Amino acid sequence: MKKFEEKTIDRKYIFNGKVIKVAYDKVKLPSGEEVSRELVFHNGAVGILPVTKDGKICLVKQYRKACEETLWEIPAGKIEKDETNTLITAKRELEEEIQMTGDFEFLTSFYTSPGFCNEKITLYKATNLEKVINPRPMDADENLEIEFFDINKLPKIIDAKTLIAINYLNKG
Amino acid sequence: MKKFEEKTIDRKYIFNGKVIKVAYDKVKLPSGEEVSRELVFHNGAVGILPVTKDGKICLVKQYRKACEETLWEIPAGKIEKDETNTLITAKRELEEEIQMTGDFEFLTSFYTSPGFCNEKITLYKATNLEKVINPRPMDADENLEIEFFDINKLPKIIDAKTLIAINYLNKG
Repeated sequence: MKKFEEKTIDRKYIFNGKVIKVAYDKVKLPSGEEVSRELVFHNGAVGILPVTKDGKICLVKQYRKACEETLWEIPAGKIEKDETNTLITAKRELEEEIQMTGDFEFLTSFYTSPGFCNEKITLYKATNLEKVINPRPMDADENLEIEFFDINKLPKIIDAKTLIAINYLNKG
Repeated sequence: MKKFEEKTIDRKYIFNGKVIKVAYDKVKLPSGEEVSRELVFHNGAVGILPVTKDGKICLVKQYRKACEETLWEIPAGKIEKDETNTLITAKRELEEEIQMTGDFEFLTSFYTSPGFCNEKITLYKATNLEKVINPRPMDADENLEIEFFDINKLPKIIDAKTLIAINYLNKG
């Protein structure tokens, strides 16, 4: 699959944030032509589809500044710099966001928007949920509302990772 | 759903590209606390699930610089500044990328990564595909390989919009 490769001729880093890095590349196409690429680098994230013992789905409602909208999503979060195992990230995020733990099963992983961004999300399903006593606190800048839904009465979902996760409910 | 809202106190634009704009906001949380937000703005995109008359799925293979990887994806593309109807964008992109047209049906729309980016993708299914005579040319910086797949013999897919689109195949 190498024949399409685009070689970086020049890279300018434009922004180095806590969540994203932004770069502007000049690349050489296989044809020899030179074009520019706008790139967003992200450390990756996990999402967890939490299913209670009685078959309900837990979602969190959250304001998303980039979209200026409040969305229903599965619990999720960024992989921290020192985390090398997405399962550890998933367990940490589930505890922080809904104060629960459970049995984790890998579902899939995917790029959210590969045209300009390398963010990869790894999805897990967590079943047999149980409350965590003395859970780790939520990030200070997060503001969530937690709710449990019947599978047939889910709210309107317009978030990619949540759409992909709930499709696994029908696959058993 | 206003109670979660985060008010922008200060915004710095960091990058103004052809594909993305990047901003760094200081926002006030409902609690009164002030935090920062790294934001990527995108004009939105469309994706098209192309199904041939004999039930095959058309995917395109493309090198994605941000990921340094070649991926199988449904045909897709950005909404141009002057395009106000995603159906027009979808018809243009299908013609440019696979030189075909068909009957278009709206599937869904979603945010790819609402935690930091406002990119919204609108998905269509295109059936009864037919070759376009004298199609519009592809963008000069695109390099695609087109292939038709049996529904049960799809390649490994790790792109969010393509995963969401192919889930509609099972919904009839």
